[in-house]
Amino acid sequence: MNWGQLAQDRLSEISKCSLESSGVSRFPFTPEHSKALAIIQDWMAKAGLGASIDDAGTLIGHKKGGDGTKTLFVGSHQDSVRDGGKYDGIMGIVLACLAVEKLHTEGFETPFNIEVLAFADEEGVRFPTALLGPRTLAGTYDPAVLSMKDNDGISLEDALRDFGCGPDNLSNLARNPDEIIGYLEVHIEQGPVLEIENLALGVVTGICGIERNTVNFCGETGHAGTVPMGNRRDALLAASEFIHLINHRATKSNEVLATVGSISVYPNVVNAIPSKASLTLEIRSINDQARENFAADALNIAHEVAQKYSADFSFLQTYNQAAVLCDPALMSRLKKSTNNTAGKSITLPSGATHDASAMADLCPISMLFVRCKKGISHAPEEFASSADMHVAVETIAEFLRSLTT
Amino acid sequence: MNWGQLAQDRLSEISKCSLESSGVSRFPFTPEHSKALAIIQDWMAKAGLGASIDDAGTLIGHKKGGDGTKTLFVGSHQDSVRDGGKYDGIMGIVLACLAVEKLHTEGFETPFNIEVLAFADEEGVRFPTALLGPRTLAGTYDPAVLSMKDNDGISLEDALRDFGCGPDNLSNLARNPDEIIGYLEVHIEQGPVLEIENLALGVVTGICGIERNTVNFCGETGHAGTVPMGNRRDALLAASEFIHLINHRATKSNEVLATVGSISVYPNVVNAIPSKASLTLEIRSINDQARENFAADALNIAHEVAQKYSADFSFLQTYNQAAVLCDPALMSRLKKSTNNTAGKSITLPSGATHDASAMADLCPISMLFVRCKKGISHAPEEFASSADMHVAVETIAEFLRSLTT
Repeated sequence: MNWGQLAQDRLSEISKCSLESSGVSRFPFTPEHSKALAIIQDWMAKAGLGASIDDAGTLIGHKKGGDGTKTLFVGSHQDSVRDGGKYDGIMGIVLACLAVEKLHTEGFETPFNIEVLAFADEEGVRFPTALLGPRTLAGTYDPAVLSMKDNDGISLEDALRDFGCGPDNLSNLARNPDEIIGYLEVHIEQGPVLEIENLALGVVTGICGIERNTVNFCGETGHAGTVPMGNRRDALLAASEFIHLINHRATKSNEVLATVGSISVYPNVVNAIPSKASLTLEIRSINDQARENFAADALNIAHEVAQKYSADFSFLQTYNQAAVLCDPALMSRLKKSTNNTAGKSITLPSGATHDASAMADLCPISMLFVRCKKGISHAPEEFASSADMHVAVETIAEFLRSLTT
Repeated sequence: MNWGQLAQDRLSEISKCSLESSGVSRFPFTPEHSKALAIIQDWMAKAGLGASIDDAGTLIGHKKGGDGTKTLFVGSHQDSVRDGGKYDGIMGIVLACLAVEKLHTEGFETPFNIEVLAFADEEGVRFPTALLGPRTLAGTYDPAVLSMKDNDGISLEDALRDFGCGPDNLSNLARNPDEIIGYLEVHIEQGPVLEIENLALGVVTGICGIERNTVNFCGETGHAGTVPMGNRRDALLAASEFIHLINHRATKSNEVLATVGSISVYPNVVNAIPSKASLTLEIRSINDQARENFAADALNIAHEVAQKYSADFSFLQTYNQAAVLCDPALMSRLKKSTNNTAGKSITLPSGATHDASAMADLCPISMLFVRCKKGISHAPEEFASSADMHVAVETIAEFLRSLTT
């Protein structure tokens, strides 16, 4: 069976469940979501899975195995960003269904229950929150999110109810950790590492911790034609040196990714010395200590640069999320499966957040990355090849075969 | 006589001819302009000057001298920027009137005609053009500007006509260069050099040439959490290194001022590598060759930086204005007068443009700078002291006394 071609066809089919847009735009608790779930339910049936939607909008394909006390989750999210691609999120559902279908057609019964999870909302595009599905399963969901509204003023609570879900029942969805073997998520890499390494698959070591800082440099404005070079307190100049030094240090470190993605300058006119430059510094690492050390170094660099240019500065952390590590035992088993099917694989961290981050509060997690073209994601150009997806299906099936309770 | 205090009082008085705003907001051909001219006419009368408004809206205070064939101009502009200060422009008119009044009270008659010029529009705030007054005198005015409109859709032609001026007669205002001795303009420095040097006055060597360039760096965007540091083509990083190197070179050169005043980055979000950074590079120098050499170096730097970061770049000159040099003979005479009255002075270039730039097409020009607090201009905090203005009045009077035809 060419599982890769089948995956490609299914991804094409379900990509049509989208608002009219240049790419895929499928948001949670919408008519597009509803149409997508009908299709996924069909895939689940082909895999021998019964299907039901829980009160958080997670479509669950389930199949008993063994004595029925232990469960393995395999899942991902059905939603997309606006004008996104055909693979991010949904590919994990497609490949999971195909792997279970493969075992089903082969007559293989796992000694544990399998639940394939199609989460409603991972991207957080419609509401200013995300990950409701995995958080309700993990029992970490915060009821305050129910009152959050989308751009049309519809609350998450109303959207859930209109979708046939039960917002009042969310706290009852929490699973018992003792009954869960683990969670496996398959996702496109969203980066270029596998392509650079010429590999179809990568085993994820964990999900990077993220922190975001706002760094302001305040100097003094002045006429670009009258203030001598030596008498300037140019905030953009200070910011430029900071950006340069930060990049140099991150490149040397090999442990962190550091990005100044955004900058704003005041007064930002051609003939005035900038008095203020405000920038964002995002730092990601699988190693929280390395990230925190880097942030401390960045603070020192900001201090030194500000002194050099007689500027004032502030350095404020605006966001902080610890790294989530994959379970060593599941990782090792997944690595074996990958090596058996793909011949070779590497381990790599995930720079982006996934449903797995929230599932980690419930159970051991593991993730498999599939190579994507040029590392592009969240864009219509997103692409994973049929060949790579074929090996991914074989790997998931092999992983499920090899797993014991 | 305390000419400085008188100047301060007059500047306070005329600052009230303004739109309601946090500073002075007086635009050409408006009721505020009209009120200001009535006050200036009064000052001119006190100085023994007859007054008339020409068809370009320049108020001219005139007094015959000698055989009446040669004329010296002393002038500046009456208008301000929005929320500007009390000194920029108008101080040159106040001090010119007081210097002529000083000679008048002393019974001194110059052997040439004196015309004190109060130009209507130097700042170019109301219309997207400026310097109509000096350009009509120099015969360099372009009739096309008459159709330019302000934000209310009123053309310069209609504004002139409503103000009682004659837009059809502008080409007849050109003076005969053979009859003009020169033009003297007194202005606040708009920079910190005199304050740093602890001097009241400075003799201007010329008005810097200006060029503006737009420099674009184009790299590639990508997820801040997934693209390895070594595989990035970060446009902001390239721009930062460019800004840094340009500043270093300008600081070393001593001949140019180079300013990156504005930058915009795309997509400018916290978690994406910038794919595009677009910045402005303004270069000013009294030495056009030095400026052009610097621009050529800047182009090379952009090229090298782009190569280093695997980025593309473009470098486009959007504006170019040659330097205008002050007349050596007038400068030398003004320097002598300054040394006599202030004890000591320096020569320095003007980084900003002035009415004198346009007058240079008609006759020899010279300019005197008065120290201003912290170099601030175009803001309500603009300030020149009574003591400094007193010495300036004495210097202008001394200059007029010493000048022969």
